[in-house]
Amino acid sequence: MNRSDGRAYNQTRNIKFTTNYTKNALASVLAEFGDTKVIVTATNDEKKPKWMDKEDLRGWISAEYSLLPTSTATRCQRERTKISGRTQEIQRLIGRTLRSCVDLEKLGERTIIIDADVIQADGGTRCASICGGFVAMSIALNKLLKEGKLTQNPIVEKIAAISAGISSDGQILLDLNYEEDSSAQVDSNTVMTESGKIIEFQTTAEKAPYDIDKMYKIIDLSKDAIKKIISLYPPINN
Amino acid sequence: MNRSDGRAYNQTRNIKFTTNYTKNALASVLAEFGDTKVIVTATNDEKKPKWMDKEDLRGWISAEYSLLPTSTATRCQRERTKISGRTQEIQRLIGRTLRSCVDLEKLGERTIIIDADVIQADGGTRCASICGGFVAMSIALNKLLKEGKLTQNPIVEKIAAISAGISSDGQILLDLNYEEDSSAQVDSNTVMTESGKIIEFQTTAEKAPYDIDKMYKIIDLSKDAIKKIISLYPPINN
Amino acid sequence: MNRSDGRAYNQTRNIKFTTNYTKNALASVLAEFGDTKVIVTATNDEKKPKWMDKEDLRGWISAEYSLLPTSTATRCQRERTKISGRTQEIQRLIGRTLRSCVDLEKLGERTIIIDADVIQADGGTRCASICGGFVAMSIALNKLLKEGKLTQNPIVEKIAAISAGISSDGQILLDLNYEEDSSAQVDSNTVMTESGKIIEFQTTAEKAPYDIDKMYKIIDLSKDAIKKIISLYPPINN
Amino acid sequence: MNRSDGRAYNQTRNIKFTTNYTKNALASVLAEFGDTKVIVTATNDEKKPKWMDKEDLRGWISAEYSLLPTSTATRCQRERTKISGRTQEIQRLIGRTLRSCVDLEKLGERTIIIDADVIQADGGTRCASICGGFVAMSIALNKLLKEGKLTQNPIVEKIAAISAGISSDGQILLDLNYEEDSSAQVDSNTVMTESGKIIEFQTTAEKAPYDIDKMYKIIDLSKDAIKKIISLYPPINN
Amino acid sequence: MNRSDGRAYNQTRNIKFTTNYTKNALASVLAEFGDTKVIVTATNDEKKPKWMDKEDLRGWISAEYSLLPTSTATRCQRERTKISGRTQEIQRLIGRTLRSCVDLEKLGERTIIIDADVIQADGGTRCASICGGFVAMSIALNKLLKEGKLTQNPIVEKIAAISAGISSDGQILLDLNYEEDSSAQVDSNTVMTESGKIIEFQTTAEKAPYDIDKMYKIIDLSKDAIKKIISLYPPINN
Amino acid sequence: MNRSDGRAYNQTRNIKFTTNYTKNALASVLAEFGDTKVIVTATNDEKKPKWMDKEDLRGWISAEYSLLPTSTATRCQRERTKISGRTQEIQRLIGRTLRSCVDLEKLGERTIIIDADVIQADGGTRCASICGGFVAMSIALNKLLKEGKLTQNPIVEKIAAISAGISSDGQILLDLNYEEDSSAQVDSNTVMTESGKIIEFQTTAEKAPYDIDKMYKIIDLSKDAIKKIISLYPPINN
Repeated sequence: MNRSDGRAYNQTRNIKFTTNYTKNALASVLAEFGDTKVIVTATNDEKKPKWMDKEDLRGWISAEYSLLPTSTATRCQRERTKISGRTQEIQRLIGRTLRSCVDLEKLGERTIIIDADVIQADGGTRCASICGGFVAMSIALNKLLKEGKLTQNPIVEKIAAISAGISSDGQILLDLNYEEDSSAQVDSNTVMTESGKIIEFQTTAEKAPYDIDKMYKIIDLSKDAIKKIISLYPPINN
Repeated sequence: MNRSDGRAYNQTRNIKFTTNYTKNALASVLAEFGDTKVIVTATNDEKKPKWMDKEDLRGWISAEYSLLPTSTATRCQRERTKISGRTQEIQRLIGRTLRSCVDLEKLGERTIIIDADVIQADGGTRCASICGGFVAMSIALNKLLKEGKLTQNPIVEKIAAISAGISSDGQILLDLNYEEDSSAQVDSNTVMTESGKIIEFQTTAEKAPYDIDKMYKIIDLSKDAIKKIISLYPPINN
Repeated sequence: MNRSDGRAYNQTRNIKFTTNYTKNALASVLAEFGDTKVIVTATNDEKKPKWMDKEDLRGWISAEYSLLPTSTATRCQRERTKISGRTQEIQRLIGRTLRSCVDLEKLGERTIIIDADVIQADGGTRCASICGGFVAMSIALNKLLKEGKLTQNPIVEKIAAISAGISSDGQILLDLNYEEDSSAQVDSNTVMTESGKIIEFQTTAEKAPYDIDKMYKIIDLSKDAIKKIISLYPPINN
Repeated sequence: MNRSDGRAYNQTRNIKFTTNYTKNALASVLAEFGDTKVIVTATNDEKKPKWMDKEDLRGWISAEYSLLPTSTATRCQRERTKISGRTQEIQRLIGRTLRSCVDLEKLGERTIIIDADVIQADGGTRCASICGGFVAMSIALNKLLKEGKLTQNPIVEKIAAISAGISSDGQILLDLNYEEDSSAQVDSNTVMTESGKIIEFQTTAEKAPYDIDKMYKIIDLSKDAIKKIISLYPPINN
Repeated sequence: MNRSDGRAYNQTRNIKFTTNYTKNALASVLAEFGDTKVIVTATNDEKKPKWMDKEDLRGWISAEYSLLPTSTATRCQRERTKISGRTQEIQRLIGRTLRSCVDLEKLGERTIIIDADVIQADGGTRCASICGGFVAMSIALNKLLKEGKLTQNPIVEKIAAISAGISSDGQILLDLNYEEDSSAQVDSNTVMTESGKIIEFQTTAEKAPYDIDKMYKIIDLSKDAIKKIISLYPPINN
Repeated sequence: MNRSDGRAYNQTRNIKFTTNYTKNALASVLAEFGDTKVIVTATNDEKKPKWMDKEDLRGWISAEYSLLPTSTATRCQRERTKISGRTQEIQRLIGRTLRSCVDLEKLGERTIIIDADVIQADGGTRCASICGGFVAMSIALNKLLKEGKLTQNPIVEKIAAISAGISSDGQILLDLNYEEDSSAQVDSNTVMTESGKIIEFQTTAEKAPYDIDKMYKIIDLSKDAIKKIISLYPPINN
């Protein structure tokens, strides 16, 4: 089977990170995975979250995620009275994975807020948000270093994320677009460090339980893609 | 007094409309008034609103407006549990003024939804949303004409909107940026047709009640600017 | 055309302010514009709003507006889970216009809360609320002066508000009742000081964009009416 | 001990019902128990509630209750995001007791909505609401009879309500005002028919459990008061 | 008439209190009234409620009540966006009656939170919650005494609660199960001390106003049952 | 290192399923994993969800999850105004995994609602809910078969779920209790079919990215445990 956009099964879409996309945030990145486009920004709040213990001297990374109503194939409703389970899951995933590569003690008692706003959605928005979030966070922390608010860079290692799945005819596919994602039997999201360690791996086979061997293949493909994505990250010193 | 960006008192900022900005909406425009950038899209919903009388054969134009959290100078909170009064006022204004130039009978029993999402805010977001909304609506209605869903163009006349105000030292200024707006004594928003008829005029002098003559001057300046903005609208036939 | 209640086009309805209408508020007024009846009260809260800067030594005027369910021609729903855009717009308008005539520094770090509860609605409730709010606020501030909580009266100048519009047959009408308001092509609300300065002017022509000259006429008529309404305000020393 | 307003222990305040208090509701009554003043209206909705079985041919009486913010000694907050437990209890009580004296089959598939809006509160607002609600409902049903929407009057018997309590020094008191209510050890609300049958009796002794004999005395006093209140009801034929 | 479960009219169901039902609460009781089963726990919070005056040295007892969705004959919805009036009434009743038998000064500045979660509902859940709540509170307070957090037991007297009603054929019945409760003309809930003093008595006759004499009989029956229930309370010293 | 409760690293706690735990649900199970106790019920609703296409003849399985406030080590708040992200994630997981083993076409146009209410929490509540949910759903579907509402059993294969993690000293542990879970570096949840196919696998290493080899070990351990748990399921024919 050929993919509709002509890619090989193990090929990502065109991935691109444009920095300084908007001017008011501390750091702002447009993350593109093919036609998926997410504005990801990082804001520094010189307070840690209220729920953290006063004795605790660490900081925090939190994340918010949202779809513009017309980012999706069919217009979706704004989440103005309650947040959907899907949105909450994605926000929690972004925050959790970005915290995994940061030394929260070195960060100190502040919060870095990551805002991921999808302006065009074509599959893989959560992975684009994590990658864009890592870039925005890196730039923001670098600025705090320059301003003297930080004395050491709290980032431990670079990370990235990628989706993969199994199509309805049983083929493993990397970096699914919306059309592929809608018809896939299995999907997965993998977040790893540059050195190939697991931060988060999630796979779901709502339509058809599948063999563990295939899962191992998905993980291998994703590991290679993550290395490649990290190589595409822009330099953070601007 | 000179304006911080060197403009004359009666000069607008650089105004620009980029069509086809995102791919999933029926029509999508990036409206820019200087550093103010708003993604405005138009969606066609083949149902009229539930509150409309079943006997009524007319259609409707509705609007939603939102600020990205980091669009503003200081990060603002997402409106996820309730919509602020400011947002509601702006949404209602956008919908009302766009309806004023459309023949709702010719539109037929459907709803055109205008989504205005501010990605960067530097004053005048409601005027940019109305102008961008007019462009997006025009393109969308043109597509419906081509698809045969409409037999006549329901747009009666072109419209545009512009802000103006009085600075703290009493000078009338057109198209205020955020800094000017924050310190102004008086502000106003004017929406007019191409032929100079009034659709909406609002002026507020919370800090200093002012003379009617000055209000008349503001209206004259705004009228000229509106004509100029309409001349900048892109052709809708693409 | 004759008006259904026999008034001339430039004539207001019977306008009346009854003080001490209820006993528990610091000041309580029944404001009547014909059949429109609004209970407007003023309460003194010896705290300024939380969002105000601690360094800021000024006070604040805030307003809440509500319709009793059976005040309207057809029973309306209580706003018990969210506040409508219309209610928010009116509340913001009342607060903003009453602040425009008060020296917030002389008021000192307190909040005057204006509650406008419409018990019978027949058009023009926002203007009745602003006028009744001005009277209630004046009485309340006078009491605070007598109690020694204020050393100077913070009111700068008297203000009032009036509606006007253009009927379906093109006639300008002052102080529209519900029936006239429902069928009008254009409506407007004007808030001015006793000396004729503009505080707020809003006009909307959702149904039919109109000539600027007519707008100027509306403003002139409203100016005269506002002077007359201020002359009807009760003495505040009781 | 003497009561602060000079009443005997078994004496109600001045009780008064003014009909046609506002013009838009089907029936509108101002119910006064001393300084307690409640606007109670009845609206006819030609639909029964959605939760009722479609097969069920009976109608329904529902009630809503609200305090104006400045009706109370200290300004209370509007219930705009959630309804307090107290408000819900009172609304349920008003609806339940008014249904107890109506033949819901004769009422037919419609809803009578009772709105009780307290404009001045000085104790006993729930009893004033029930009595005013009975009067408003009676007038409304009479109008439906005249209009031919009803063929028989569905009211079975007149009802009224009264509060009583035990003061901090152990004295039984009828129709407590706010001051007496605040310091009482025991309070009670009794709703009975004209012929002295029990519809609802509630007594609470949060501060001091008390003897059953005293409860019997409270019931006797309340029974006499209820008869007297019913004798004060205005004629319903206007 | 015979009762469906063979009981005499003045006979309660099998009543049982199992302590230490769950391990994490300070005190945990399973209260059973026949097939009605409620998990009632007591938690000690070393803060008094925020609304209490800082000067006030007393403590507080608060209560929360909830039905598991499948506890009821037909699955009921979880109360996840707002709390129903019924739930609020029951919570308020539980808290109020448990406070009536506690010396809040001896309790000191803390809150005992009673959680009543109905896992199986067959009528009388509020009475089971009050009785279970009294047992859980007693155990919790006893633990606080042992830990030295209290120096005196703040409980003044034991209390219990029981329901009674009048069936559709006019018979007085004690401790109604769900089936009896659904068809009853009259229901009542009585809360008394061991010595027979009234804490709370509520009776409602929505379907058929009834004679005071029958109410007196209901009270007598309930008084006897309450004594019996108190005799079934488990020892609190474990 | 020894586990605090003496288990081997690859040993589950005592796992037990008690059927008919409550009487009103179609199926009711108490699922126990050591001290974790969850009441899981299944309800049949003869309607499919509203969001499903009318043309679609399939059914649905939905799930709700809740913690009793005192189920947890420290009392947690009831989710009465909004549902937390954690709760939403767990509900979605339970529903998704139970749907994976059901042929929704054979189920037909109805909804099976799974309610998982945790009465005591000691780690692993989501896995206990999935296993208990599978048992309750099996019993419910079997009843529908007996009643003739179903003609074929829609269950494709048995499934179960288990947690595993890596302790702070790097040891892999199966079926973590609360204490182990709180200090773990890595956690995971695995849902598989009896034949060892993957339905869902999630692993998170917020504190310390880890080697893929260890993840493979976790999966192997979990696979064995899932087989064992399925062997403990009670017979469904009662």
